[in-house]
Amino acid sequence: MTVQLTPEKILQVGFGFWPSKTLLSAIEMEVFTELAKHPEDLASLQGRLGLHPRSARDFLDALVAMGFLNRVDGQYQNTPETDLFLDKRKPTYIGGMLEMANARLFGFWNSLTEGLRTGSPQNEAKGGGESLFAALYASPERLKGFLAAMTGLSRGANVAIAEKFPWRNYKRYVDVGTAQGDLAVQVALAHPHVSGVGFDLAEVEPIFEEYVQRNGLSGRLKFSRGDFFNNPIPETDVVMMGHILHDWDLQEKKMLIRKAYDALPQGGALIVYESIIDDDRSKNVFGLLMSLNMLIETQGGFDYTGADCMGWMKEIGFNDTRVEHLVGPDSMVVGTK
Amino acid sequence: MTVQLTPEKILQVGFGFWPSKTLLSAIEMEVFTELAKHPEDLASLQGRLGLHPRSARDFLDALVAMGFLNRVDGQYQNTPETDLFLDKRKPTYIGGMLEMANARLFGFWNSLTEGLRTGSPQNEAKGGGESLFAALYASPERLKGFLAAMTGLSRGANVAIAEKFPWRNYKRYVDVGTAQGDLAVQVALAHPHVSGVGFDLAEVEPIFEEYVQRNGLSGRLKFSRGDFFNNPIPETDVVMMGHILHDWDLQEKKMLIRKAYDALPQGGALIVYESIIDDDRSKNVFGLLMSLNMLIETQGGFDYTGADCMGWMKEIGFNDTRVEHLVGPDSMVVGTK
Repeated sequence: MTVQLTPEKILQVGFGFWPSKTLLSAIEMEVFTELAKHPEDLASLQGRLGLHPRSARDFLDALVAMGFLNRVDGQYQNTPETDLFLDKRKPTYIGGMLEMANARLFGFWNSLTEGLRTGSPQNEAKGGGESLFAALYASPERLKGFLAAMTGLSRGANVAIAEKFPWRNYKRYVDVGTAQGDLAVQVALAHPHVSGVGFDLAEVEPIFEEYVQRNGLSGRLKFSRGDFFNNPIPETDVVMMGHILHDWDLQEKKMLIRKAYDALPQGGALIVYESIIDDDRSKNVFGLLMSLNMLIETQGGFDYTGADCMGWMKEIGFNDTRVEHLVGPDSMVVGTK
Repeated sequence: MTVQLTPEKILQVGFGFWPSKTLLSAIEMEVFTELAKHPEDLASLQGRLGLHPRSARDFLDALVAMGFLNRVDGQYQNTPETDLFLDKRKPTYIGGMLEMANARLFGFWNSLTEGLRTGSPQNEAKGGGESLFAALYASPERLKGFLAAMTGLSRGANVAIAEKFPWRNYKRYVDVGTAQGDLAVQVALAHPHVSGVGFDLAEVEPIFEEYVQRNGLSGRLKFSRGDFFNNPIPETDVVMMGHILHDWDLQEKKMLIRKAYDALPQGGALIVYESIIDDDRSKNVFGLLMSLNMLIETQGGFDYTGADCMGWMKEIGFNDTRVEHLVGPDSMVVGTK
């Protein structure tokens, strides 16, 4: 008996950039923001979005077939998911990250092979241009959009950290690279006895303050200006680092873990979280691909397994370490001093 | 009760260009052709493929997590599917089409939004360059690779046409745009009483002849040189057009259907096949995205539903029409004169 092999999966993934780019173009053209106002027919949508008649219908019907729009009696409408997550005017919008993927990463990933052969970044930095972070921080508007997008993406994991970490044993925390501050906010909302500090570059401060105030937490959450390469992390009971370590090379990673260690008392804890790769490096597809994205985007960054991170923590002096799954591809690695 | 909505599918598709490009780079770097020789460990593969050490392991482990490689005791090896379909030295190799997608389409699709706004192609033709077909036909080597890749992709549908069409009622057929000739070959292999003609440009003749000879069918399959815009289709009982009509605009499509009609006797049949879109235009994702690919690649091409095609056939004079599913996204539309 022979098993019938088919090339279906190879073709589906190989041509996977088609549905991907179609969704990214729809976000860029604000299809979902437009349809969040009310359902529209082809002629009306075509006009409002500035679509050329040739492919407008194929484009919208492809979004229907992909499950991102519904079409009822010729009226296109958002699905519950695209209405909640891809309408720009809602606070639950997560499209900022995908706008960035569309405007930057899709093109940069076209040079993946060159990156794999050379080990060098393939983004703006490639032609000697300014880095992503430099470009972001130069524009308050762009920075705010990026940080809000990070919040949308991290929300699930942030809520999970607020739930799963034993906060009853701790009073104070510092969120390193806090961005808009959603992780600090979720922990404070869930645990009235704690107070926290968001630690980030000065440009982030007004964005953090606005977000914290909107959540009614200005009394318990403060901002601390600093650059984690040039300043110590403020002393506290728990240090958190979400989507930080993977941007940096091994030495920089260890330096940051050491700064966390130095900021903690005996019994204090470091929480590192992002798309932690499974120890066998054979399951967390998103974590492994995120590591390739660090090749595209950074000089030496890479993602890592829970075992890797626990090893670095132990080397630096943490006594007790563990890995705990959060949501989707994300886990946290916890080290206790 | 509220349903918990998650952005998971949006993110998975939005970042779907990551796994897609990772597989395409692996095909470009001949990972699967190398591993078809024997399993190899990281150090050996890295050297043979010319991978920089920084991301070699992430790249290969991502292919493991995506299900395209296995890793056993540190030795990477192909899966049964990648060994059969992505080893360049096997006749079952389908990577040619994906090499083309990697070298050309991935970059061109980065301009999808511009295509949607302007209705104009976004490929080599955009800057006034030569068309895809001109470039292909200029190099016998490249043309042969492309045509072999088409065969790999079409094989399943070709076998299905040989099985599902009532060949017992017909003796002769012409395959228009025959390429390597696999459709003509599969029909002849399954039905000893028929003989066929492959109709295509002169450059294709030696590639067709070699393939037909390899299949032991030189006695029953002949090549006819012609350009379907400037020459009539040779007279026959059944005309077949696979992956042809979608390249052209509505007038050209109808002109080609009329040429088929003119080539047939009363009772003769036209078989049109490709990724025919479902009549509701809400299910065949690949067919709808293929139509966007026609926007990227052609001046006026588009994919269409079975109802569309049957309408054109009836308008031109075919009596009886029907749509029949073949495999995957492919169906055939049959018209009887």
